[in-house]
Amino acid sequence: MINRLAVIGVGLIGGSLALSLKSKGAVNEVIGYSRSENARQEALALGVIDKAADSIAEAVAEADVIFVAVPMGAMAAVFADMSEHIRPEAIITDGGSAKAQVVMAAREALGDNFKQFVPGHPIAGTEKSGPSAAFATLYEDHRVVLTPLSDTDTAATAKIKAMWQLTGAEVFEMDVEHHDTVLAATSHLPHVLAFNLVGMLAQRDDCDEVLRYAAGGFRDFSRIASSDAVMWRDICLGNKQAILDLLDEYHQGINKIEQAIKEEDGEYLIEVFARAKKARDTRFADPDLIDNSEV
Amino acid sequence: MINRLAVIGVGLIGGSLALSLKSKGAVNEVIGYSRSENARQEALALGVIDKAADSIAEAVAEADVIFVAVPMGAMAAVFADMSEHIRPEAIITDGGSAKAQVVMAAREALGDNFKQFVPGHPIAGTEKSGPSAAFATLYEDHRVVLTPLSDTDTAATAKIKAMWQLTGAEVFEMDVEHHDTVLAATSHLPHVLAFNLVGMLAQRDDCDEVLRYAAGGFRDFSRIASSDAVMWRDICLGNKQAILDLLDEYHQGINKIEQAIKEEDGEYLIEVFARAKKARDTRFADPDLIDNSEV
Repeated sequence: MINRLAVIGVGLIGGSLALSLKSKGAVNEVIGYSRSENARQEALALGVIDKAADSIAEAVAEADVIFVAVPMGAMAAVFADMSEHIRPEAIITDGGSAKAQVVMAAREALGDNFKQFVPGHPIAGTEKSGPSAAFATLYEDHRVVLTPLSDTDTAATAKIKAMWQLTGAEVFEMDVEHHDTVLAATSHLPHVLAFNLVGMLAQRDDCDEVLRYAAGGFRDFSRIASSDAVMWRDICLGNKQAILDLLDEYHQGINKIEQAIKEEDGEYLIEVFARAKKARDTRFADPDLIDNSEV
Repeated sequence: MINRLAVIGVGLIGGSLALSLKSKGAVNEVIGYSRSENARQEALALGVIDKAADSIAEAVAEADVIFVAVPMGAMAAVFADMSEHIRPEAIITDGGSAKAQVVMAAREALGDNFKQFVPGHPIAGTEKSGPSAAFATLYEDHRVVLTPLSDTDTAATAKIKAMWQLTGAEVFEMDVEHHDTVLAATSHLPHVLAFNLVGMLAQRDDCDEVLRYAAGGFRDFSRIASSDAVMWRDICLGNKQAILDLLDEYHQGINKIEQAIKEEDGEYLIEVFARAKKARDTRFADPDLIDNSEV
């Protein structure tokens, strides 16, 4: 049971945790802070939070659990602002999409309280944002990854794990570097690739015409290019090395395909395409698969 | 009205045209040929075709419209096999995903009958294949592109256009090169990118684990990597130059993003990502957009 939960950043991610824990009767009071006065008032009016704080200091002062759910680029400043005001027994966690950068910022800012910091990443979201986008069931059947360090207090990790389990999420532990590589591979790199393709097409004079002939396959492929630009800038800079490493590997693969097309090496193309198809089919059985064979 | 329609390749694409025209009462008889005896018999048993031909020569001999719906790599041989047996007034069309290569093959093989050849591309499909995958409404509300040449008979083009309109498709005309560039941009290149990413992840030792943490965004992005390898080899080789040109442009874009991540040039990243988001949001309004902001 959490007595007072402080949520820094009362948008989709922070707000949904608050609503979920409230719906389970697992928290006595939620105090929220957002840089935007409007968002604070909206979260209060919608019952996402019980109390709006005017500052980070006020939000964390009496909290026993603090959830930092701001864009990754803003996390270092948030940790710095809270560090003098946290109760020594308070447990801090976050929702950042890449962990190494957040861990470094927390370690620098939190001092002795760093051992009470449990880095986390709920792998959930929708395209919407802000307090009105939050809903209590966002995390149900989603995965949450925790990346505790060797000096993280094990009781703190256990408490955060139990908190996420209450939301209906499946909780996994992973080390920081592994998390950042896994997410770079399945989320960050695909976003970069889709942003680049759609951005490139958007600059063509005949963009409207080109997109008129795009069908279901392109719509699915490009959906992630509709994601928030600031959030993804933060993720790209926050998970810089893992993304750059995978981009290197990606280039090597694409260069080989390019070479095979140039040399009309059909066997190589079939080898790569069939390997991909097999992995996609066996690991992502998808009964709703339509309109994808050619278009 | 078509008296006898010959369908070469009685799979999803050819079979669905046959079923659609039959359902509209727009064809007296459909004769089908497939390299596979099994497919021929299956198409006959399912009523996709009225008569199974034992050879291409037999299939086309008395046809007034011939639809070639075989993988692109097989088209040259099909044209060569039919050329001596076509009635002079027969109209020929095809369903290939890239047009320059098909046009070249048809021009070489068909001789005087080439003016009766109307290159076409129905932009429709599902992940399934074979006669049993065919259905009468596949083309409803889909786009069909025709790419007639300067020496194509205009009456032939008009007849093929009318035929496709009967299926419920919207028919457009485009020149060959433009078609091939547009499709390379919105279909062929995205397939190559998705095949490469999924193929690359499939080779990792921790592939299963990596994919366990992949969420909706990756599922959508990678769906096209589940497409048929042989068909896509044919398309890559059949639309070689347009794909290579766009890959060049794609590399330039990705290299700039890579540089920006290295130099932590957040402004540049926001510029590219926001441009892509705007294009995706305004040109592909998608009410079902979920789970794409981060995951």
